Amino acid sequence: MKSARPIYDNLFEVIQNRRSKRIFLEKSVPDDVLEAILNAGFRAPFAAQLCSLIYTRDRKKIKDLQPMGVYPTTQVLIFPLIDLNRHEQVMNQRGHSYNFDDTLALWLGLQDVSLVVANLTLAAEGYGLGSVLLGAAPIVADELVKMFNIPKRAFPVVGLCLGYPDPAEHTEIRPRYPLSFSAFEDKYHQPSNKELLEAMKVMDEGYLAQDYYIERQIKIPLLKGKDSIDYDTYSWCEHISRKFISGGWSKGSLLDTLRKHGFNFD
Amino acid sequence: MKSARPIYDNLFEVIQNRRSKRIFLEKSVPDDVLEAILNAGFRAPFAAQLCSLIYTRDRKKIKDLQPMGVYPTTQVLIFPLIDLNRHEQVMNQRGHSYNFDDTLALWLGLQDVSLVVANLTLAAEGYGLGSVLLGAAPIVADELVKMFNIPKRAFPVVGLCLGYPDPAEHTEIRPRYPLSFSAFEDKYHQPSNKELLEAMKVMDEGYLAQDYYIERQIKIPLLKGKDSIDYDTYSWCEHISRKFISGGWSKGSLLDTLRKHGFNFD
Repeated sequence: MKSARPIYDNLFEVIQNRRSKRIFLEKSVPDDVLEAILNAGFRAPFAAQLCSLIYTRDRKKIKDLQPMGVYPTTQVLIFPLIDLNRHEQVMNQRGHSYNFDDTLALWLGLQDVSLVVANLTLAAEGYGLGSVLLGAAPIVADELVKMFNIPKRAFPVVGLCLGYPDPAEHTEIRPRYPLSFSAFEDKYHQPSNKELLEAMKVMDEGYLAQDYYIERQIKIPLLKGKDSIDYDTYSWCEHISRKFISGGWSKGSLLDTLRKHGFNFD
Repeated sequence: MKSARPIYDNLFEVIQNRRSKRIFLEKSVPDDVLEAILNAGFRAPFAAQLCSLIYTRDRKKIKDLQPMGVYPTTQVLIFPLIDLNRHEQVMNQRGHSYNFDDTLALWLGLQDVSLVVANLTLAAEGYGLGSVLLGAAPIVADELVKMFNIPKRAFPVVGLCLGYPDPAEHTEIRPRYPLSFSAFEDKYHQPSNKELLEAMKVMDEGYLAQDYYIERQIKIPLLKGKDSIDYDTYSWCEHISRKFISGGWSKGSLLDTLRKHGFNFD
């Protein structure tokens, strides 16, 4: 197979410029590009290679997953898995039996998976592809397991939509909390009220200036009380707060779902 | 502050060449380099910015943490945290109360943290620094909480040792499972015994050819039975299997530790 050639290859520019893309051109991703991205993904610094992944370019599958949040024009849809099934096959082949704390295995596996995801998103940018992460993958685990024949003790962590970005989509580099609010030398720093408000202001004014929420109309409704916040002031801190007001899970707890898919927490 | 200038900036070369470094020169990391690396870390694609981090350059702290696996010549030691404490302050400031499933919050937070970690390791490489991850951070959470004054509901996920690599350290690019064993189109593939053995052979022969385990003398002892495997054949699959034979945790389960640090799973 011929070797794909990246379009952007400056590490710091790719890291700095990366933002989610949700609308993609009807242009398929060549095999060699996809292979190069996947290989870059698995170069991640692993604990135990507890990550495998499913991907699809099947239009019907992508369409069928739209109600679960997959963007319609996605060209390649990836579901990285925490894969203890595969790891146990390696162990058994060596004559060993798995006898580990599944919580700790998931803890390590989530890191393995996310390190792969980070490389995948950066490598995709390098090949001129855009991407967006779908955090809801575990919520639709039952459907994914069925669609992709995922065995017990392998579990989808996140979804990753890839494609050549539609230049018509308005995206900008999104703000982040200031470093003084996120990185502490020698001692954790509890922010003063002033510092807290300043950090929140960076996020809120940043997203408001980009018309992020009003363009997308994605205000999270309040479960109780009158919602007095309109899109003139609805911004990141309000949005991210509302995500954590309710349980965030409609099909039983994540632990129960993981149990159903073969993990043990006893 | 002057802006630091990277040494290596080719995204794909940095991803491809990255390998753990454990021995560092006695050369401190300038403030502007550290700041650039931290900023690159926090450009990661976040769910909810549930990551903050503690770092130290204090020789005494680094020395005191050596028994917990920190490499002696580490110049900057970073502990990324899942930080629900900070998130709840933001929520409270907006007049909201956290009422979320902590398991799901940890699930999302671990991803946020690991995406930051991936960027940190790549950006560090870009500035000519080496790094190694320490998975045992949660096991020594009590000590870290005390040393760095970490509040309840913030928790160290992993350690990251940084420094200018000592050129005397022998490191090579480590093997990975073949893509055919890790990435499946449309349907999860259970390997045949032949495919399993082939994938394991890539890892085992790769590490043996690099003298990885014999150089480091890090064979994991078997808890029972006679250990008939010597360093001529002891390689990655045996090592990673032995890690998952026992509980891997000496101070109660990870869930109990997380409970102690303020997380709820009821």
